Amino acid sequence: MATYQKILVAVDLSSESEVVLQRAQLISGPNAEIHLVYVQEPMDNVYVGIVPQSAAFSGLGDLEAQLGEELKQKLLALGENFNVSADHLHILNGSPAHEIHRFAKENDVQLIVIGTHGQKGLQLLLGSTANSVLHGAGCDVLSVRIGAAR
Amino acid sequence: MATYQKILVAVDLSSESEVVLQRAQLISGPNAEIHLVYVQEPMDNVYVGIVPQSAAFSGLGDLEAQLGEELKQKLLALGENFNVSADHLHILNGSPAHEIHRFAKENDVQLIVIGTHGQKGLQLLLGSTANSVLHGAGCDVLSVRIGAAR
Repeated sequence: MATYQKILVAVDLSSESEVVLQRAQLISGPNAEIHLVYVQEPMDNVYVGIVPQSAAFSGLGDLEAQLGEELKQKLLALGENFNVSADHLHILNGSPAHEIHRFAKENDVQLIVIGTHGQKGLQLLLGSTANSVLHGAGCDVLSVRIGAAR
Repeated sequence: MATYQKILVAVDLSSESEVVLQRAQLISGPNAEIHLVYVQEPMDNVYVGIVPQSAAFSGLGDLEAQLGEELKQKLLALGENFNVSADHLHILNGSPAHEIHRFAKENDVQLIVIGTHGQKGLQLLLGSTANSVLHGAGCDVLSVRIGAAR
């Protein structure tokens, strides 16, 4: 392997995504194929047990579709800023770590790049995506430290 | 930041250390400063509670010194094979994650590179060094996947 040729950059579409993507481009070769992946957790997963499944929430599907459209626009803008072609932008649905592992495996990804706030202690117990992605990943994982160093 | 200029490569001095070091050199610039760090856990920490602190173990210090010498030779050989200068080879004593974090902070390291077997489930609960290093690291961490991808 010359250098990483196929890279998955996991983004949360916050302003921090730019830092993570910059870092990925920094270490990749000029011909590397960079895929931007955003994983949208289904709302009925997120809210299960919090809101009742009543008629008042029958509009959840619409809301989800609207949110999906906004995320798509954000991802497109990010891709454009960093010269990532539109067919390398992906919005997946499900559990982040699971979807990222699945995409990486199916597409022979050599490196996953993801942001981390360096959780420890209680924060860590509550779980970070970077942490979940590291566990059981079949390829290398670059965790990009976001925010001030301690 | 152009690319990673100061890199800490954590090695366990098994044959897998070469893979981890190769990967570090792959992504670093031509002028990057690469430090090889091996952390030796004090034997009296490792064996506390397992062996009694009796006279029979009064030779533990000698054994530790002998082991330290062997590790030093291995580290020197590894450094030579990969053109890492002798003053960038470090054997530290203590808890691996703690010592790696301390060294990284004191030396303004921008990237820690470490091997991982991708533990999950029970293995993960028992703890991996890569995992401990990721938690609370003040800089980026590249976890290099060792062994067959799953």
